[in-house]
Amino acid sequence: MSRIFNFSAGPATLPLPVLEQVQAELLDWHGSGMGVMEMSHRDKEFTSIAQACERDLREVLGVPANYKVLFLQGGATAQFSVVPQNLLRGKTSADYIVTGDWGKKAFKEMGRYGRANLAATSEAEKFTTIPDRASWKLDPDAAFVHITSNETIHGVEFPDAPEVCGVPLVSDMSSSFASRPIDVGQYGLIYAGAQKNVGPSGITIVIVRDDLIGQVLPGTFAIHDYKVVAENDSMLNTPPTFAWYVCGLVFQWMKNEGGLAAIGERNARKAALLYDYLDAQDFYRNPVAKPYRSKMNVPFVLANAELDAEFLKGSKAAGLIGLKGHRSVGGMRASIYNAMPEAGVAALVDYMKEFVRTKG
Amino acid sequence: MSRIFNFSAGPATLPLPVLEQVQAELLDWHGSGMGVMEMSHRDKEFTSIAQACERDLREVLGVPANYKVLFLQGGATAQFSVVPQNLLRGKTSADYIVTGDWGKKAFKEMGRYGRANLAATSEAEKFTTIPDRASWKLDPDAAFVHITSNETIHGVEFPDAPEVCGVPLVSDMSSSFASRPIDVGQYGLIYAGAQKNVGPSGITIVIVRDDLIGQVLPGTFAIHDYKVVAENDSMLNTPPTFAWYVCGLVFQWMKNEGGLAAIGERNARKAALLYDYLDAQDFYRNPVAKPYRSKMNVPFVLANAELDAEFLKGSKAAGLIGLKGHRSVGGMRASIYNAMPEAGVAALVDYMKEFVRTKG
Repeated sequence: MSRIFNFSAGPATLPLPVLEQVQAELLDWHGSGMGVMEMSHRDKEFTSIAQACERDLREVLGVPANYKVLFLQGGATAQFSVVPQNLLRGKTSADYIVTGDWGKKAFKEMGRYGRANLAATSEAEKFTTIPDRASWKLDPDAAFVHITSNETIHGVEFPDAPEVCGVPLVSDMSSSFASRPIDVGQYGLIYAGAQKNVGPSGITIVIVRDDLIGQVLPGTFAIHDYKVVAENDSMLNTPPTFAWYVCGLVFQWMKNEGGLAAIGERNARKAALLYDYLDAQDFYRNPVAKPYRSKMNVPFVLANAELDAEFLKGSKAAGLIGLKGHRSVGGMRASIYNAMPEAGVAALVDYMKEFVRTKG
Repeated sequence: MSRIFNFSAGPATLPLPVLEQVQAELLDWHGSGMGVMEMSHRDKEFTSIAQACERDLREVLGVPANYKVLFLQGGATAQFSVVPQNLLRGKTSADYIVTGDWGKKAFKEMGRYGRANLAATSEAEKFTTIPDRASWKLDPDAAFVHITSNETIHGVEFPDAPEVCGVPLVSDMSSSFASRPIDVGQYGLIYAGAQKNVGPSGITIVIVRDDLIGQVLPGTFAIHDYKVVAENDSMLNTPPTFAWYVCGLVFQWMKNEGGLAAIGERNARKAALLYDYLDAQDFYRNPVAKPYRSKMNVPFVLANAELDAEFLKGSKAAGLIGLKGHRSVGGMRASIYNAMPEAGVAALVDYMKEFVRTKG
C-alpha cells in the first residue's frame, strides 16, 4: 500500500492512526462481536462512543458548560436555513459579513426567514480580503451576526472572532473547525461539517449557547430544533453512528497530538512554508491580502494558465492529488487540514519548485 | 475475533463479506492511495463508486427508467416532512394508512402541510394487523396514499402493494427495503433509511417517479427538493460518501447472493423457522395476525414477563444480542434482516427451546 498526499478540500485526508484503528475495529469493536456500523444507537456500546466523542470535543475545544454540542445531518448547507429557524427568536433580521461564496449562500438563505442585512462584503475585491471592521454596518437589533470563519474556495480566514457589540456571533467554521485554539465563549453558535478536519462527510457539529435555543420558527422540523435535539442527546432519530465514531477517534488523536495548541502551531508552520514560497517567486501567486490568508485552504494561480493541466498531471504522478482549484476561481488550491503532515506540504513545495525549473 | 448474532432493529448486522471488503480497502481504495472516506465527492474515484451503487440498486430492485434514485440525509424522519413538501403538488390532502408507530409519526407530520386523512388505522387492535382494504376511506382527490410497508416496532408487514385507484402510493420501506422482489412501478415513491438492510445509518434512499417531482411547497430547503437533488446527482452539497459506498457494496453482495429472488426466499425460510416455533408452544407468543406478520422484525412476549431479564441475560451469554423489544410494546424482538444468516435464526430458536426446558 502506498498512501498519497491528498490536498482535497473535503472530504479530505484523515489521520493515518485513526484510519488504522477504524480498520482494526471494523468487524469487532472492543470484543463486542460486531462493528460500530452495526450497533444499535440505543445500546450502551454506541452511547459510550457518542459520549466519549462529545467529552473529547469539549476538552479539545474548551467548550464552556453553558454550550450544547449537537451532532446533526445535512452539512453546513442545511445549517444555512436551520440557524435562522432557531436563532431569530422573535427578531426580524440578521447581519451577514460575506467574505466568499459560502457566506453568500448563507446570506441568501437567511432571506427566506427574515431580513438579511449585508453588513459588509468583499465581493468587489473578488473575496480576496475581509472588509475592515470599522466599515461594517451592524444593526444593534439583529438577531445574530453571521461570519464564515474560513472561506474554503477563496482561502480567506478571519484571524480572530470579530467584536460585534454583544449580538450573538454565528460562525460557519466548516473548513477551519478545530484547527487552532479559539475562545468558544466569543461565539453564540459555531457550526461545521465534519469532512475537513474532524471526520467523514455526513455529520455536522453545532455548538450553541444554551440561552439562544428553544424558540424555533413555525414549520421547523423537530430534527432541526436545537433544543429538541439537545434534549434527546442528538438521538431524536437514528444518528449517523459510524461518522460520529470516526469523529470521536479524531478528537482522541488531537489530544494525543498535544491538543489544539500543538496542532495550531503545526498548521501555522505548514501554511508559512507554502505562503513563503508563493511570495518568494513570480511563477505562482496567491491573491489574498496577507492578514486574511487561510491556514487551511491555499489557492494559487500559475503565471501561465496554459500550464495548469500539465501542473496537475505532474502533481498526480508525484503522489500529490486534489490540487485543482474550485471552478469559480480557477488555478490551484492546496487544502492543508490538520491531518496533512508537514512532509506533504514540503513535498508540494518541492514539486512546485521542480515544475518551475523545468517549465518556468 | 468472534462475531455474535446481532438482532438489533437498526443500525443492524451487515454482511460479513461487505465488512471485510470495507476493512481491506479502508486505507487504500483500489490503489488510489486513499480511503473512500477521504475522497472528494467531485473526483472520478468517488463518482464511479456513487454511480455503481445506483446502477446496482436499479438492477437489484428493477427500478424503471422513469424513476429517480436519490441519496439523502436525515433518515425516514426527515422524509415524513419532505414527502408532503414535494408530493402535494397543488393538492391539499393526503391519505394515510396507519399500521404502527412509524406510520403514526408520518401521519402527524403531514398535518403541518395540509389535511392528513386517516383513511385507515389498526391502532384499536394495538397495531397487530392491517385494516381490511375494503374498509379504507380513500379520497380520490388525495395527493398520495401513504403506507408503512413494514412496521419495525410492531412487526406488521404489507404482503403486497395495496391497490389505491391510481393515486400515487408512497411507502416508508425503511425496514423491509430490498428484502424481497417488489414491483417498483406500483409505487409513486419509496423511501428508506439504509440502516436495516442496505448499509450504515446516515443515508436515506428515495425512489420517486419522475412526473411527481418539481412542485415543492414554498419554504422547502433546496437539499429537500427532489427535482433539484436529482438534477445534481444527489451532490447538491457534500453527500455522506462513506455510507453511500457501503450501500454500494451491499447491493453488489445482493447480486452475488442471487438477487432479491434468492434473498427473499431465504428471508421467508428464516421467518418461517421462527414463527413456526412461536406457534408450536405456549411459552412465547407473537401477537400479529398471520397474513401480516413481518419477515423482518419478529416481536414476541414470554408468557411470564418476570423472566424477560433472565431471557435477555442468557441470550447475550449465548452470543445473541439486540433482542429486547421496543419499550412501547415490551417483550422481545428479533430483527432478521437480509444479513442475518439462517444459522443465526436457528441459534435463536435453539436458545429459546433451551430456555423453556430450564425455566418453563
